[in-house]
Amino acid sequence: MNSRLAIYPGSFDPVTNGHLDLIERASKLFGRLAVSVLRNAGKEAPMFSLSERVEMLREVTQPFANVEVDTFDGLLVDHARKLDARVILRGIRAVSDYEYELQMALMNRKLEPQLETVFMLPAVEYSFLSSHLVRELAMLGGSLTGLVPPAVEQRLRIKVAD
Amino acid sequence: MNSRLAIYPGSFDPVTNGHLDLIERASKLFGRLAVSVLRNAGKEAPMFSLSERVEMLREVTQPFANVEVDTFDGLLVDHARKLDARVILRGIRAVSDYEYELQMALMNRKLEPQLETVFMLPAVEYSFLSSHLVRELAMLGGSLTGLVPPAVEQRLRIKVAD
Amino acid sequence: MNSRLAIYPGSFDPVTNGHLDLIERASKLFGRLAVSVLRNAGKEAPMFSLSERVEMLREVTQPFANVEVDTFDGLLVDHARKLDARVILRGIRAVSDYEYELQMALMNRKLEPQLETVFMLPAVEYSFLSSHLVRELAMLGGSLTGLVPPAVEQRLRIKVAD
Amino acid sequence: MNSRLAIYPGSFDPVTNGHLDLIERASKLFGRLAVSVLRNAGKEAPMFSLSERVEMLREVTQPFANVEVDTFDGLLVDHARKLDARVILRGIRAVSDYEYELQMALMNRKLEPQLETVFMLPAVEYSFLSSHLVRELAMLGGSLTGLVPPAVEQRLRIKVAD
Amino acid sequence: MNSRLAIYPGSFDPVTNGHLDLIERASKLFGRLAVSVLRNAGKEAPMFSLSERVEMLREVTQPFANVEVDTFDGLLVDHARKLDARVILRGIRAVSDYEYELQMALMNRKLEPQLETVFMLPAVEYSFLSSHLVRELAMLGGSLTGLVPPAVEQRLRIKVAD
Amino acid sequence: MNSRLAIYPGSFDPVTNGHLDLIERASKLFGRLAVSVLRNAGKEAPMFSLSERVEMLREVTQPFANVEVDTFDGLLVDHARKLDARVILRGIRAVSDYEYELQMALMNRKLEPQLETVFMLPAVEYSFLSSHLVRELAMLGGSLTGLVPPAVEQRLRIKVAD
Repeated sequence: MNSRLAIYPGSFDPVTNGHLDLIERASKLFGRLAVSVLRNAGKEAPMFSLSERVEMLREVTQPFANVEVDTFDGLLVDHARKLDARVILRGIRAVSDYEYELQMALMNRKLEPQLETVFMLPAVEYSFLSSHLVRELAMLGGSLTGLVPPAVEQRLRIKVAD
Repeated sequence: MNSRLAIYPGSFDPVTNGHLDLIERASKLFGRLAVSVLRNAGKEAPMFSLSERVEMLREVTQPFANVEVDTFDGLLVDHARKLDARVILRGIRAVSDYEYELQMALMNRKLEPQLETVFMLPAVEYSFLSSHLVRELAMLGGSLTGLVPPAVEQRLRIKVAD
Repeated sequence: MNSRLAIYPGSFDPVTNGHLDLIERASKLFGRLAVSVLRNAGKEAPMFSLSERVEMLREVTQPFANVEVDTFDGLLVDHARKLDARVILRGIRAVSDYEYELQMALMNRKLEPQLETVFMLPAVEYSFLSSHLVRELAMLGGSLTGLVPPAVEQRLRIKVAD
Repeated sequence: MNSRLAIYPGSFDPVTNGHLDLIERASKLFGRLAVSVLRNAGKEAPMFSLSERVEMLREVTQPFANVEVDTFDGLLVDHARKLDARVILRGIRAVSDYEYELQMALMNRKLEPQLETVFMLPAVEYSFLSSHLVRELAMLGGSLTGLVPPAVEQRLRIKVAD
Repeated sequence: MNSRLAIYPGSFDPVTNGHLDLIERASKLFGRLAVSVLRNAGKEAPMFSLSERVEMLREVTQPFANVEVDTFDGLLVDHARKLDARVILRGIRAVSDYEYELQMALMNRKLEPQLETVFMLPAVEYSFLSSHLVRELAMLGGSLTGLVPPAVEQRLRIKVAD
Repeated sequence: MNSRLAIYPGSFDPVTNGHLDLIERASKLFGRLAVSVLRNAGKEAPMFSLSERVEMLREVTQPFANVEVDTFDGLLVDHARKLDARVILRGIRAVSDYEYELQMALMNRKLEPQLETVFMLPAVEYSFLSSHLVRELAMLGGSLTGLVPPAVEQRLRIKVAD
């Protein structure tokens, strides 16, 4: 396995400034960082299609040469095996996050003992931020400035105007 | 802004004795208290219509001269601006509540820096109580005595008998 | 009431090795243990029918002479009264579990003051395990070895192959 | 081992109404309950001597025929072995308690796999109560009514008047 | 009682930018705010004497016309009665804080049912900040810029140089 | 800075199997791992001297070629600058740990924005284990097998026999 490659998995529906902050921090620590977009994250339809989510991520991660964006379906550990990666990166904000993340990390370790999950902290000013909150705010017409990159803000406005 | 007016927002589907306890406590601290009912709180249809929820609240808050009941839709910060209020009041019970409330409070501060969220504690005997629990209990035919005001208990019985 | 009989309620959709571990521990402490399967646990349809869930539980709890399996609908306190039981047993894993369990325990005490909820810990290697996780893993084709009893593993494979 | 005997260990410096509430609840569930007073709980000297703490406990637990009071030093698992007990009883109040209790329970299980820790909830009105708080309150001259049994209240007053 | 007066109690050893942020926010919500310095907060000697702590607080709260600084000893509820105040203000940062604060609030409500505790959030960039951390940092020679007001920073440097 | 070098700081009084598990996991992810022993971790005297703690760590980390052991005093960020390291590694177990660790990580980021803290999980069977627990257990004569490496177990026995 390649200990220099880390996978940062998520739905990114859409990518927020909190995600982007974590990506920037991680890009300095790992040789390569794969931002891996989960095709279907739950029972609800995502706001943005898989290709839209990938497109937005590619756009905002362009400044980071060692960051690539891909997609996966099914088990994260299978995706990690395919990429020959041994590190999963997750951002943690609140305590409640942390418990869920811990469960996932232990489950993934059970499924693939060679795979380690490492946690990093986004900048503290993004500690309340989530894609869910951003979508709600967009639907209610609230200002998104400072919460998502400008390109994402524009797409959110178009999306909710539909 | 009017620092003497606080907004206590929620779905109140239906109002419980825990809500009422908090309203009574807050009515003594603030000059005026607006209990603001959120039209649609989620994807699920509420058990009681907006007008039923308002009616029940008006009935049970009648003893408190400085408490009024209104409704809102959309962003809470916009409702606060409309009322010229600078305080949001929230009750906290469990730790898990607290994390969610903290996220909301930080988000609202981001959207409107002049708006402060203050937290108060309901009486400890209501620490386990929520509208969700009350609705479930009603549907399963459990006793609601002591959990909701008598007028609400009666309406719940009629509602689940439909 | 019968202080020697404890009820271990749940959806068991399906029973996991974590449940089984707790059942084994509890069977040594209580005179009799009733594993009580809740007919409908939420709005979503369960993966396994009530009779399938009971069947699996009967199969895996066969080694424990003082363990019986039954079903209930409606309020847990009513089921406890029917069985003349005064103890509810619950397993706790994470902190977030604990808060929800505490709320339920206080509500049940309110509904039936004679009924006590006692909490026990499953083996630490099952601390991340839940029926929900097991169902997801099965649907994604992940290995279930060590997470559920072999008989359950086989049924899960058949179920997801449908 | 004797599955009908449970040990409720603690410092009881002094016994509070929260402890007493738990003892009463547990005395109905277990055949016998041993309230086991830890000789030295930490680096600080206790407010009450071991014999004072035992005396107060004997006084307030007199109504419960199946409750006995004893003392121990060293490892709790050794004390459990000596009493031929297989159950440790602990009360849990807040989440922070719970984490510490969970660590202790797992450590004790490691040291003696036959020994199970079960958790029970005191009445919700005692959820904020601890011996530490009671000692502080006594030293500051606050009212102890409703927090400790009358006999303990009197001894606390004499103790702080010294 | 005077519902327009709130007490913000603490050790303030020394006042940090987090405290000051909360004082500024609260000064806009309450008619008057009493910052009440606890004489002896624990067994350890404070770094700054009571008069030093009061002096620093007076200096940094000078811009806020409705903020006064005083001291107290003994029970907070007695101090509140003396000031004829019915509101205690506390800042909350982390979840662990919150649990302790909740215990204190419930205890104070038990001792004086007319007294309400309200919680407010400091700015998120101070969520990690505490007087304890500031004292440690000062003793280890770390930079205090942005963590305490300049006047406090200077006093800390002089204090640790002793 | 050298993104391939991570610092794992702590008191290691003494190193436990939980620490060792984390060191092994981290040694596979990072180019080099510096286990940095803090000279004085608190007001209490440590059980083992700094040189004893370093000696034990060197002994048990010998199998890992890219792991070195050193010591530091004062601020961790100063030590990181001296080593030209940009990653701090911390193990997290319980939620309460996590909150403290988060505070430290945010403080260190404030002091040195280039320094990132990453968190990893020890094996779940060590989730209850701490140096504090090990010292207590040794003093009470409990079995340490499986909790610390054999060489540490022997030293603990000699230490408590003094």
